[in-house]
Amino acid sequence: MDLVTCTAPVNIAVIKYWGKRDEELILPINDSLSATLASEQMHAKTTVSISPNFTEDRIWLNGQEEAMANPRLVNCLREVKRRARESGQTPQTRLDWHIRICSANNFPTAAGLASSAAGYACLVYALCQLYGVKGDLSELARQGSGSACRSVLGGFVRWRMGSDAQGHDSLAHQVVGPEHWPDMRIIILVANDGQKKVPSSIGMKRSVGTSELLKFRAENTVPKRIEAMEKAVQDRDFATFAALAMKDSNEMHATCLDTTPPCVYMSSTSHQVSDLVHKINEHFGTPIVGYTFDAGPNACLFLLKEHVPLLVHLVRHYFPTSDTTFKGDPFRGRDFDVEISSGEGKFQSLESSMDMGTNPDALKYAIYTKVGLGPEVLTNTSDHLLDELGNPKM
Amino acid sequence: MDLVTCTAPVNIAVIKYWGKRDEELILPINDSLSATLASEQMHAKTTVSISPNFTEDRIWLNGQEEAMANPRLVNCLREVKRRARESGQTPQTRLDWHIRICSANNFPTAAGLASSAAGYACLVYALCQLYGVKGDLSELARQGSGSACRSVLGGFVRWRMGSDAQGHDSLAHQVVGPEHWPDMRIIILVANDGQKKVPSSIGMKRSVGTSELLKFRAENTVPKRIEAMEKAVQDRDFATFAALAMKDSNEMHATCLDTTPPCVYMSSTSHQVSDLVHKINEHFGTPIVGYTFDAGPNACLFLLKEHVPLLVHLVRHYFPTSDTTFKGDPFRGRDFDVEISSGEGKFQSLESSMDMGTNPDALKYAIYTKVGLGPEVLTNTSDHLLDELGNPKM
Repeated sequence: MDLVTCTAPVNIAVIKYWGKRDEELILPINDSLSATLASEQMHAKTTVSISPNFTEDRIWLNGQEEAMANPRLVNCLREVKRRARESGQTPQTRLDWHIRICSANNFPTAAGLASSAAGYACLVYALCQLYGVKGDLSELARQGSGSACRSVLGGFVRWRMGSDAQGHDSLAHQVVGPEHWPDMRIIILVANDGQKKVPSSIGMKRSVGTSELLKFRAENTVPKRIEAMEKAVQDRDFATFAALAMKDSNEMHATCLDTTPPCVYMSSTSHQVSDLVHKINEHFGTPIVGYTFDAGPNACLFLLKEHVPLLVHLVRHYFPTSDTTFKGDPFRGRDFDVEISSGEGKFQSLESSMDMGTNPDALKYAIYTKVGLGPEVLTNTSDHLLDELGNPKM
Repeated sequence: MDLVTCTAPVNIAVIKYWGKRDEELILPINDSLSATLASEQMHAKTTVSISPNFTEDRIWLNGQEEAMANPRLVNCLREVKRRARESGQTPQTRLDWHIRICSANNFPTAAGLASSAAGYACLVYALCQLYGVKGDLSELARQGSGSACRSVLGGFVRWRMGSDAQGHDSLAHQVVGPEHWPDMRIIILVANDGQKKVPSSIGMKRSVGTSELLKFRAENTVPKRIEAMEKAVQDRDFATFAALAMKDSNEMHATCLDTTPPCVYMSSTSHQVSDLVHKINEHFGTPIVGYTFDAGPNACLFLLKEHVPLLVHLVRHYFPTSDTTFKGDPFRGRDFDVEISSGEGKFQSLESSMDMGTNPDALKYAIYTKVGLGPEVLTNTSDHLLDELGNPKM
């Protein structure tokens, strides 16, 4: 029996992917750019195993056995095997063995945080390790879930839409590694509200079919904005980075609203967070915090390390929770890499200038993280999700 | 003492006005098209009076004395007087007399229903009566509030943006009178939520300055859509009318969200109403209800008389109020021009196919109305808001 275990990170797009030009190959209508988040806080972990003794393919996701028939999963497996066969490094017999896949996230999927990117990146990375496939993995991951192609790399990553009809040039590449901008921090505010949402794959398709604003965005605004964004990342120009991220997020959600029937992902909590960020930035006369929202109500905030105490203070003040376990603190009493307590007095005047009410229990909790590395192989036996017989450990 | 009392109607745009190319003259960046609502349910009423005995200009709005210094009010008064002077019909002495203005709406301003259009249309109409000004009044009303130019006419009204730098061709004209589409009905659902909103004049200006999507909308989508809308009105083609109204409303709110900082007018209640409408239309396989949202959370629904019982039933079901005075009915027990009770059984199957939860107290109340006439002069003494000495009666 062969067995490999890997982790892959979550990524958050600051120039958004919204809309496919090819549903089958998952080819986007515009380039996108994301930050890969550190695996310490959030990751998908996948163990893949093959054996001549397995009589069928099986998969377990977050503790539940699922059907192998999922077409995206089938695509990934077929394409990795094809690449392995072409490279000639893997004997056909091994490719014929049945496979067992076990995957889990270390963050609650119920939180509505996009987990398919990390999940498919992890699956593809693990399969490539298993079959000895080398080279660019983003094309393979893309066929599982578009945004997964950005999770096969660390740091800031750009997914170029490409022009090839077969998608061979629709690939992700690293803009800069995580070490490039060491002070960048990310805070994810997990919202408590949000209505039943249209799945993003369905929402995208509907937007492509009905929104003229989306077409304009893809052809006109994104091509300009993404160049400015890449430069802002390279120059570590935070104000430009944050302004562009907010602009792009709002533009994407605008095209969702312009869709028929409309797709609404931002909730009143999302708008309250957005409002707070704009008020903070107005107070400072320049963006010191940027937000972006994916196809859900959670806010992903970007800010420099020096401003973490300020933001944590304001989030605690405006978004208290009634959960007494952590004294109403959505950060759950966590300490940060900057001293919080020192800032208390400093931020009082800021509060009074905000002209905002508090929003009790609008947030479920908050996650604090930074930019991180791409997928990693775990070699410790205790890390494997499948035991020696290929059965899930949990 | 001379005294004139008029009413002017509210109008609801189905192709939206959002954005000025000239802030001073109030010239829009695109044409718009609206339905004038019947004055029976909603109107502004204004009494204007001039007398050689008045020692200063004074104005009362909804029972409160206000400053005459409001620049838009000053503009309207100056322009009507200029027109009166040019026509030579009004002696200069009468134009020199001080004026008293008293205005009130017959619907709660607190409901957040746009009242400035009716208010300025009414003021201009009354002033023109007072000074004997004839001809097109839309240019004069426009200088009080852009959308007021559409309230000087009944039926369906189109405001052409024009191209003249002085705005002399930025005028409203009637597309069809209220008798053209006798079965058209309008239901306004007044929402209970909605955050503190950016005033529409400020929101528009911010959108013009920051949203590329708005520019695209004004130059590309509206010019095509408004021709299709005018044709739909002329042809009494309800499905097209409703589809275009929803599309245009969503596109306008999309450009608001694309604004920096974003302007958010639709609340979660707005989205729940939108969702219900799309589900109803999906059920019927064609739009039988259309919605439009102005710069606030209230939904304005268009539908044909035959579908009123159905919609009223569903609104009562999904948006009950806990106000026991009217047994939880947002329509406050009102009867309609179609028998409601007859429909009860018929709509049960519809409910079960909607897959929606109820939203208690999401609505304050509902208004039922239709397309109506333009401003009217009231000649009955009891209708005047000012007494014989020029003092407010209330």
